[in-house]
This record gives sequence, structure tokens and C-alpha cells, in this order.
Amino acid sequence: MGFHQIDERNQALLSKIAIDDGHGENSAYFDGWKAYDNNPFHPENNPLGVIQMGLAENQLSFGMIVDWIRKHPEASICTPEGLEKFKSIANFQDYHGLQEFRKAMASFMGKVRGGRVKFDPSRIVMGGGATGASETVIFCLADPGDAFLVPSPYYAAFDRDLKWRTRAQIIPVHCNSSNNFQVTEAALEIAYKKAQEANMKVKGVIITNPSNPLGTTYDRDTLKTLVTFVNQHDIHLICDEIYSATVFKAPTFTSIAEIVEQMEHCKKELIHILYSLSKDMGLPGFRVGIIYSYNDVVVRRARQMSSFGLVSSQTQHLLAAMLSDEDFVDKFLAENSKRLGERHARFTKELDKMGITCLNSNAGVFVWMDLRRLLKDQTFKAEMELWRVIINEVKLNVSPGSSFHVTEPGWFRVCFANMDDNTVDVALNRIHSFVENIDKKEDNTVAMPSKTRHRDNKLRLSFSFSGRRYDKGNVLNSPHTMSPHSPLVRARTY
Amino acid sequence: MGFHQIDERNQALLSKIAIDDGHGENSAYFDGWKAYDNNPFHPENNPLGVIQMGLAENQLSFGMIVDWIRKHPEASICTPEGLEKFKSIANFQDYHGLQEFRKAMASFMGKVRGGRVKFDPSRIVMGGGATGASETVIFCLADPGDAFLVPSPYYAAFDRDLKWRTRAQIIPVHCNSSNNFQVTEAALEIAYKKAQEANMKVKGVIITNPSNPLGTTYDRDTLKTLVTFVNQHDIHLICDEIYSATVFKAPTFTSIAEIVEQMEHCKKELIHILYSLSKDMGLPGFRVGIIYSYNDVVVRRARQMSSFGLVSSQTQHLLAAMLSDEDFVDKFLAENSKRLGERHARFTKELDKMGITCLNSNAGVFVWMDLRRLLKDQTFKAEMELWRVIINEVKLNVSPGSSFHVTEPGWFRVCFANMDDNTVDVALNRIHSFVENIDKKEDNTVAMPSKTRHRDNKLRLSFSFSGRRYDKGNVLNSPHTMSPHSPLVRARTY
Repeated sequence: MGFHQIDERNQALLSKIAIDDGHGENSAYFDGWKAYDNNPFHPENNPLGVIQMGLAENQLSFGMIVDWIRKHPEASICTPEGLEKFKSIANFQDYHGLQEFRKAMASFMGKVRGGRVKFDPSRIVMGGGATGASETVIFCLADPGDAFLVPSPYYAAFDRDLKWRTRAQIIPVHCNSSNNFQVTEAALEIAYKKAQEANMKVKGVIITNPSNPLGTTYDRDTLKTLVTFVNQHDIHLICDEIYSATVFKAPTFTSIAEIVEQMEHCKKELIHILYSLSKDMGLPGFRVGIIYSYNDVVVRRARQMSSFGLVSSQTQHLLAAMLSDEDFVDKFLAENSKRLGERHARFTKELDKMGITCLNSNAGVFVWMDLRRLLKDQTFKAEMELWRVIINEVKLNVSPGSSFHVTEPGWFRVCFANMDDNTVDVALNRIHSFVENIDKKEDNTVAMPSKTRHRDNKLRLSFSFSGRRYDKGNVLNSPHTMSPHSPLVRARTY
Repeated sequence: MGFHQIDERNQALLSKIAIDDGHGENSAYFDGWKAYDNNPFHPENNPLGVIQMGLAENQLSFGMIVDWIRKHPEASICTPEGLEKFKSIANFQDYHGLQEFRKAMASFMGKVRGGRVKFDPSRIVMGGGATGASETVIFCLADPGDAFLVPSPYYAAFDRDLKWRTRAQIIPVHCNSSNNFQVTEAALEIAYKKAQEANMKVKGVIITNPSNPLGTTYDRDTLKTLVTFVNQHDIHLICDEIYSATVFKAPTFTSIAEIVEQMEHCKKELIHILYSLSKDMGLPGFRVGIIYSYNDVVVRRARQMSSFGLVSSQTQHLLAAMLSDEDFVDKFLAENSKRLGERHARFTKELDKMGITCLNSNAGVFVWMDLRRLLKDQTFKAEMELWRVIINEVKLNVSPGSSFHVTEPGWFRVCFANMDDNTVDVALNRIHSFVENIDKKEDNTVAMPSKTRHRDNKLRLSFSFSGRRYDKGNVLNSPHTMSPHSPLVRARTY
């Protein structure tokens, strides 16, 4: 059952959705995942393997969660302390969700936003992870063929989540490095006009704040511009805020929820928030997706649709207890932010020493790394060439910007929070050797490596780079292994 | 946020799916759920309340599951014994599911079918409950407008599960009491022709075996007829087997999996099985839906789609351990079947004494009760009148046949496994008083109550029947309360 073409027999038998490759799993982009799957790094068992830096997971704060669970056996229905609730919880399938779960989620979402805004538990709607929650909102808002404007670069799997089964369309709002990839009114209008010219009905704008892959947060003015834009065109604004607790330094994260409360003429019924615990708490396996809409009908319909992807009541029950422990939540959020900040600082500082810069970011579990100066020429073909060297020779699975629909070649998303410190060291050492190797080659033709060599078109990546040389000495005892599971098959990670 | 009409503003803003009431929650049928919600029976707190007999839940075997969990703390990631696995499980989101979960599910499905057939773990695909699993298969097989033939009476929420978001259509295959509602080739052909005449492309047949609401199993010959029919027309056969472990007496349950293995000319790529643990193990809150397809492409695509409704890895992990305990599974299946059989025998025997017959059944958590003789006339209007008396006066929420798209008025689905023995007693006493009351009235005009008065059109239900009179003496100490949660909002229970 490999990923081959659909045979003629099945082309006649199955739906267009099944026949077409709307899922997007077969793109070249996924070669990196395959490379990792075929040869995953392990500090002891496979020290020369591929390091997974394409996985937007947050593994830095698990210890706190595990400690909490150890101290709260009553929170689980599978302990002697909690077993008496097993029957009522295992039986529970009300699509509103456990009342205490909704209440705890609303409270948690408020705390993540610094307590500056309150969420109403009656508007908390469950989806099957962020993946299911995103699709549900689109089913509520769009008919087949309707379009959404999405600032690019954007999350690679939006094509699956937003378009595949809903048959809606995405029109990118092109952003670029000239203003640090910020969304402008002009760019929004250009995309809107493009959709109109293609006879598409634009139903809304979808942003991810903090941004995946940029790791930056939207400022208040841009959020206000967006609200004004959707107000003017009477279209929806969907704000995917699944990385909101990953903000680790200034500026503070501003949720659309705050803007909605502050702007006088905001048509609230156009505003919808997506949330999840996969990134902010590092619990992707629990499949907690949340839709928070200010539109009553969307709340009602999305809730009816949540029957297609409810959160297991066993999981709701556990999280209800955990998230309503305010002390724990306060400590967790502070510590999680601190750990992400430290990891980010260390990672970017080391890259900087090597002459590699990243977009200045304050959030997320990844950096947006600028390797434009290493491109043979400023094309996506050259980006892919460089990327293949990084995958096959440096043995790091990073994600090329093209997979996030960016317009400028040479950017790469590099995840830093899905591994332990020792693995980070190995990755950094590999990058260092890689750059040094290039620079040595360059010395013969150009100059010393420096940030000023940005966009130096003379660089060639024709050398044979062996990742094995510098690996051996760097293998430390890493207590954790990378997940062996194919990222091809992940619900919402890349 | 009541269930009102969609206002004009939202009619302009939202999708057709959101505007139309494809979910079906607003039908008159749900008045019964509302009646229960507004006044739920409780043996001590509300002994005159409505008893919920519209909920297809299996609560008879929870004790065994609870015992198993008590003895296996290592099966949970929230116990000191299992906590070390917390990180890897909470992180796990591979859409194949935990290998041990798929293996255990495949083994369990084989055992449920008496070990007569084996299931391949690599074909086990997760869906968000049976609700999500059903929709996923339709997304794989049908384009909008395509039709499926479904023998009626059928599960009331198929309209939501199969049609709502996929935009597929259902054409009922009308079955009736003349042959105990068995599906015939002639009925299939009539439905097929009807679809063709309506210019619909028929993509398949969907059966529920054991049947909901009939509580009967399909015999081998009928299953073979179905396979021959889909082979001839080159369309799909989806077998919803979510009640397969509820068979409590002969004849033995035959899965389509057995027929597929036995028939020489079966086009396997047309056959798909739906499964779940909501009924067979009574765990609807855990949202375990399974798609088992013999078509490789459907397996692949359904698995990609499962990202919209994966089972929480916490729940997968627990069930993997439980279902791979073969001793436990064997005992559970035997005991569950025994308890359902005992409850069914007791319930139908008592009804029989009152002159009320049910369709002879061997499975399920409900009976298909024949109240045709109590109808004013043989119309669905009369069925609704009788039903309103049962709801409002007898205070039992049973489900009228019309909600299952049956063609003959006067049948009611009555659930018997979602309550304890004492609640059953109260329900039986209420029915007894109800019938006695009718018979007393009848005595003045017709004859003594007897089964021979079947289809006696002279009966009128114009009396004022107070359920309160006979309730008070019957209230025993029932240790369990009915779920207070609105069945309006259940994922897949009615």
C-alpha cells in the first residue's frame, strides 16, 4: 500500500476526493520526512542518522505535566482514586463536552492571553485536533469553490485541512522579507482582487498568530487592519492561535479576542478563533482542537459537526482537572515560555556565530532561517538543491520555504523544541561543519564567510559533503529518542 | 443559542451546510429527547420523570471493564505504573494509530466474530467514533449527489453521518413486516431503479448488521444476495457492524468478512466494514470508530482523512492493553452476551404477558416493539399521536418507527440496556398500567386485550392517561442515574 498512482479500476469506483491527491502527502517536500523515517538519528543506536527538525512539537515542558499527574491520581478514570467515575465518563458523549472541560479550556485560553480577555465556556466547541477544528469552521463558512485569503508563508497542511474535503480554495496573500513578512492592507487587496478576477467568492481571511512558520506575532495595528478589512468586505476572519502560549519574549502576544473587545465597529459575527493543546502544552496525541466563534450560528453548527471528531471523554476528564488547577497553569505557562526562550536564544546565538541569521522572532517552536546567501541563484530550484544537500549530506530534516508557499526562495523552517539539549548540540555542530566546509571552498574563490555575503550568487554547492565526518565526536547520551513514527502520517505537526 | 431559524444576516454569511438543517436535530422525533431532558427519571429524586428508552447504550458490562482497569494500572499513562510512557503516548499522533492498538482491535474484531475470520491490523483505520468513520468512507466513495441504497428501517442519524457534509444521498430500500423486514433482491432492484430514474449515480449499499433498530442479524443467504447485487452493479457494500458483539442468542452473527472469504467471485475492493466500541463495549465517550476496507486505496485515503478525527492516544493506549488481554476479552464477550440475553428475555417476556409483541430478535440493545394494534388508524399521524401519549403520559422516551424511515406505522424502538434492573421494573410497570388502562376503556366498547386484537382500528387514545398514578409504588432504589446530558447532542446514540 505504497503511495502510488490510483489505478484505473479505482478511478471508476471512488470519489474525486479519493482519486485526486488533495491531501498533499506526495509532494517532494515530504522526501525530508522519508529521509528521516528511513534513517532516524539516535544518540547511541544511530548517531549518524537524520535529525528531525521538521517537526513542530514542543517537548520542553513534559516533566511538569508528568509531575502534576503523579500528584493527582484522582484526575484519571484509570486509577483507584478516579475509577468510580469510569462509567459516567466512558459513557459521556454529549457534543458540548464535559462542562468542567469547557470551563477549564476557557479559563486556560484566558490565562494564555495574560488574563487580558475572558472566554465564554458556552462558546467552546471541540474539533478533532486543530486539523478537525479548522475543517469544521470552513464547512460552516464556505461552499465548494469559495476562497479564503491566507498570508504566505503559511502552514503547509492548510491545503489538507482547509481545502481537501470542503472543496474551498486558498488565495495566498504574498508577504516578503522587505517588511519582515508582515501583512499589509495593500497585499490583502491585491489577493482579494485576484480572487474576484478568477470569479471566486472570497469568504474570509485566515491568519496563524503567532505565525507558523515565521515564529512572529501580529501587532495590534495589523490585527486592526485585518478586522477593518473583513468588516469592509463583510467576510470572515479566522485566527489560528494554536501557538499562543509559545511566546517567549517581547512583544507580548495580542489575541484577536482583545481586538474584538476593543474595536468599536467590529462585526463580531465574522470573527472565529482556532485553538489546540498540541503545541501550547505539547499534547498532539490527545487531539484537542477548539473552535471559539463569536457567531452564534457557527457555534451551534460547529458543535453539531463536532460529533465527527469529539475529544475522548477520558482525555477531556483528565485535562479538565489539570487546566482548572490555576497554580499549575500559571507555573506551566511561565516555565514553558522560559524554556522555549532559552532554547531559542541558544539556538539562534550559535547560528549567528556561524553567520546564519533568522527572522527576528518571539514565538513558536521553530525559526525561519535565512539561507539565501547559500543559494546558487535566487530560485526555488536552487532552494531545493540546497535543501537536498542539507537532508542528504548534513542529515538535518529542515523544511524548505517553498512548502509554506513563500514567494522568496532561500528560507527554511527549523524546529528547535522537539529534541533535547544534546541533540541540539549535534545539530548545531553539523550546521557549523557544513558552513565551514562551504566557506573553505569559498575561500578559494571569494572571501571569508560573513553575513555580508548575503545573496552571493557565486556560491556553488557542488562539493561532496559527508555528514559523517563531524558526527562521531558529538554523540552524547541523549535520554530521549526521536519519534520513530512517520511524519508523513502526522495529524498536524509540520 | 436555541435551535431557531437562521437569521438573514447569517444566511448571507455562512455555507449552505450551515444554513440548511442537514443535521436533523430539529425534527419532531427529538421532542422525546427534550421531554426526557426536561424531566429525567431518577428513582429517588424524580421518580415520576421520563425514563430514557431512546438511548442505544450498553451499560450492562461496565463492572468487568472497571475490574480489569483496577488490576492493570500499567495500562494507563496516568498511574505511577504507566506514567513513564506519558510523554511518548501524549506525543503520538501517527495516523496509523499505535501499532499495538491496531493489532488489538484486529484481534478483538476476530474474536467478536467467533474466531471464524481474521482481520489484518494494517487495514484498521481510525475514525472519530462510528459517526466520523461512516462519513470518512462516504467521502472516499461518493461525490456530491451520488446515492447509497439503505434498507429501511435504518439508524436515524445516517442522514447526518452519511449525507450532511459529504452531500451524498440516501435511497431507502423498503422492507416490511411481511417477511420480518428482511432485505430482498427485488426491494434492492426497485430502489436501484428509483435512483436511476431520478438520475442519481448509485455508489453502493449500506447495511447495519446486526440491524439498528430491528435487533436482528442478516443471514448468510441475504448477505450473499447483497454481495452478488453489488458485484453485478459494480457498486460498494458498506457493512456497519457496530452491534456485532451484542448478539445474545441464535442464529449466530455472520460478518460480511466471512462471506467475502467464502464467495468465489466476490470483488473484494467493493467491501468495507464499519466498527466501533461504543455499543459492543459500551464506551461511546472514547470515540473509537474503525474503518476496515478490503480496498487498498480506500484504506490509504481513509487513513489520511483520519487526521480529522483520530482517537486520543491516551485512549488508544489503554484499549490496546485491554483488548489484547485475550482471557479478558473472551470472558467479557461471553458475559456481555449473556447479560444482554437475560435482559432481553426478561423484558420481552413481560411485554408478552401484556399482549405486546416485538419483532423476534437476537441482537442489539433494543427491541422493535409492535404497537400497531394500538393505533387509531394505520397512519404515521396516528403513530405520532400514540407516541406523544407514551412520552407525555406514560413518560417513557421510546423512538417512533417513522424516525427510522420505516414504511409501516406502529413500530417503536425501545432500548433496554442503558438502565439498571430497577428502572426496567418501573418502565415495565408503567407499560403494564398503560395497557391495562386502555384495555379497561376498550372493555366498554370491544373486547379483552389479546394479541389477536392486532390492527384493531377501533381503539382510540383519547383518554387522559396519568402516568403519576401507578408510579409512586414502584420506585425502588436504583443505584444508577440516567445520563443527564441531552441526547440531542449525542454523537451516535439514537
